[in-house]
Amino acid sequence: MKVHIITVGDEILIGQTIDTNSAWMGQQLNLIGAEVVEITTVADEYHSILSGIKKGLENADIVLTTGGLGPTKDDITKKTIADFFEEGMTFHEETFRRLSKLFAKFGINVLEAHKEQCFMPNNATIINNDMGTAPGMWFEHGKKVMVSMPGVPYEMKWLMENGVIPRLKEKFTSQPIVHRTIMTAGTGESRLAKEIEDLEENLPDYIKLAFLPSLGTVKLRLTARGDDEAKLNEELEVLKAQFIERIDKYVYGFDDEKLEEALGKILKEKGLTLGTAESCTGGYIAHRLTSISGSSAYFWGSVVSYDNSVKMNSLNVKTATLETHGAVSEQTVKEMVAGAISSLGVDVAIATSGIMGPTGGTDEKPVGTIWVAVGNKSEVKTHMLSLTKSRSKNIEYTGNFALNFLRKFILEQ
Amino acid sequence: MKVHIITVGDEILIGQTIDTNSAWMGQQLNLIGAEVVEITTVADEYHSILSGIKKGLENADIVLTTGGLGPTKDDITKKTIADFFEEGMTFHEETFRRLSKLFAKFGINVLEAHKEQCFMPNNATIINNDMGTAPGMWFEHGKKVMVSMPGVPYEMKWLMENGVIPRLKEKFTSQPIVHRTIMTAGTGESRLAKEIEDLEENLPDYIKLAFLPSLGTVKLRLTARGDDEAKLNEELEVLKAQFIERIDKYVYGFDDEKLEEALGKILKEKGLTLGTAESCTGGYIAHRLTSISGSSAYFWGSVVSYDNSVKMNSLNVKTATLETHGAVSEQTVKEMVAGAISSLGVDVAIATSGIMGPTGGTDEKPVGTIWVAVGNKSEVKTHMLSLTKSRSKNIEYTGNFALNFLRKFILEQ
Repeated sequence: MKVHIITVGDEILIGQTIDTNSAWMGQQLNLIGAEVVEITTVADEYHSILSGIKKGLENADIVLTTGGLGPTKDDITKKTIADFFEEGMTFHEETFRRLSKLFAKFGINVLEAHKEQCFMPNNATIINNDMGTAPGMWFEHGKKVMVSMPGVPYEMKWLMENGVIPRLKEKFTSQPIVHRTIMTAGTGESRLAKEIEDLEENLPDYIKLAFLPSLGTVKLRLTARGDDEAKLNEELEVLKAQFIERIDKYVYGFDDEKLEEALGKILKEKGLTLGTAESCTGGYIAHRLTSISGSSAYFWGSVVSYDNSVKMNSLNVKTATLETHGAVSEQTVKEMVAGAISSLGVDVAIATSGIMGPTGGTDEKPVGTIWVAVGNKSEVKTHMLSLTKSRSKNIEYTGNFALNFLRKFILEQ
Repeated sequence: MKVHIITVGDEILIGQTIDTNSAWMGQQLNLIGAEVVEITTVADEYHSILSGIKKGLENADIVLTTGGLGPTKDDITKKTIADFFEEGMTFHEETFRRLSKLFAKFGINVLEAHKEQCFMPNNATIINNDMGTAPGMWFEHGKKVMVSMPGVPYEMKWLMENGVIPRLKEKFTSQPIVHRTIMTAGTGESRLAKEIEDLEENLPDYIKLAFLPSLGTVKLRLTARGDDEAKLNEELEVLKAQFIERIDKYVYGFDDEKLEEALGKILKEKGLTLGTAESCTGGYIAHRLTSISGSSAYFWGSVVSYDNSVKMNSLNVKTATLETHGAVSEQTVKEMVAGAISSLGVDVAIATSGIMGPTGGTDEKPVGTIWVAVGNKSEVKTHMLSLTKSRSKNIEYTGNFALNFLRKFILEQ
């Protein structure tokens, strides 16, 4: 079954709101074997919504709309839908009862604008919304289906899970779709593609491979469609194993796992504690690590030593080292690792020092020169990166590199 | 000028990636008086891309596409565009030189797949991409324009800022449009709206006010369109002054200034140095501060004390304080401020300690309970936040709150 998602809202078009609803819907629909063929964002405006619905119902078996339902006047989605189906609107008693009850609970008076919200196109099947005031509406149009939902994410999600997905499953029996996702770090899209070129060329028509690159990482996704789900899963498992064999040294995880999660798992398994000594990354690596719930089990802390005085006083970097080699040097990051291990009382540490830009470079050490070190009490490994002039990109890339560098260091021990 | 944005990518349709490019583009286009009339996401598939381009060029003056450019085989956007314009493809020497140079810098061999990336539709005007391998392509189609850009956000942003926006401004002369942006923190949209209610009601038709809220901050944007740019600027200056008078205590800056930039300016002016002692924010505040180029002038460093041992050893928080009041307490964050000032050798410091969730709460201290302290050697101020169950939102909100809290503390001294 093919699905066209339409999100209604000026706030998305002017960039005030990022449309996160569609991605969530796409994920849920995939799980029931539905294929999202297009996502369209249109303005809160009669003709835009109307042409969106028309195109959607030509394009797909199912049109799901979010947004444009609510008590304020710019919400004209419902009126447009009624016109599209050439239907009038009827006052829906049950919706009004539910709304009055909800408002009574919060001590709010029901206003005229709220009453207007209870008029529904005559051909709508109402899907009650336990999370808010605007219900979902289900329409049948020949063999096709259109569903209208409010745009508030938790209301839309509740309606999808409790009303829309079960009804879609019942009405449309569809072909299964299965995925495998392999997460890699340490090389680029082209090199990965080269390593698995023949495997990719030999993929049957019903299995597709996608490369999804970001800074220092590439996600590989295999997608298979067919009638026999068990067989598809079997085939993908075989393919996944073949892929991993080829690119083993770059694979750090599966299923959208983040580098900081993969590293965290290894630290937990090995019973190791981690600290960071960050100069040029300025706390970014610590932030990435502590974004993971439960990271306090292995992450002890960090010394962000932006100023050289902090490198000396809190990390015991020698004055002579800074004077002879400079803050951006292999010797300095080595001493920073040792300093972090001792001052934070941890087993392993990451250290970074570099020139993030866009200014501050010299001929000898241009912007983008970054030293990274990882190690434990007995061994420290270092690497110099030569990156770009974009500060934010340099910070993110260095973060990914350092997390992967430590991951590999621990696995090699 | 009307714009239709097309984002190409299966990863968006299946919900693996959230489309953040469109929102950013919408914001930038608004500033030059362009109106985004539709955003369409289509699959990495010939016919979907083709019909997207056709519809876009019917719909709008400008079609901007992102995604579907890159060295791997699933990237067919370029071929589709060439077919749409009924053009062949030519090897683009300069793009190949740029790519070879970039690769040489990183010691990477140029592969056949990279060479294929250098073939461009004959009618394309190439916009060099300093951030990556795939350049932007500009096409003229009668009076209309189509631009194709890679989907990697920082590459797209760089191309928009350095190539696309300036060219669009040149080609589509539109009525002058001028803006004033006031950045506020410390209160919500409703309260701000109430404070300036009458001013907003009296705005003439050609001046619009927008409230753009995010976590703990609200951006107010005045936009005026007309023929006399000088007069518009004059009017907006008067209005801006009137707005500021009303909401002075919430205003921290202008023109998309970030809180960490506003704070940095004040620190520089006053000749003060800053350090942070972060438990629950885990380095996020240090990361925000060091994202600003030049922050080494006032930011010395941070002690991320995720584990209590680090609070005690590196920040001199007393064992008795942790035992009696717990790590998430007013007493602890007070001692953390003092510890940061002394161990980092700074004038002022920020400290945070809380339960970020989604787990780890107790009846007495539920998830979202966060203590923040700011101060200098002689005075420390504290505040307790009661936030949500979303870890990422809690971290971001606490960061914004803490930066603004210190900003106000310094201004009150």
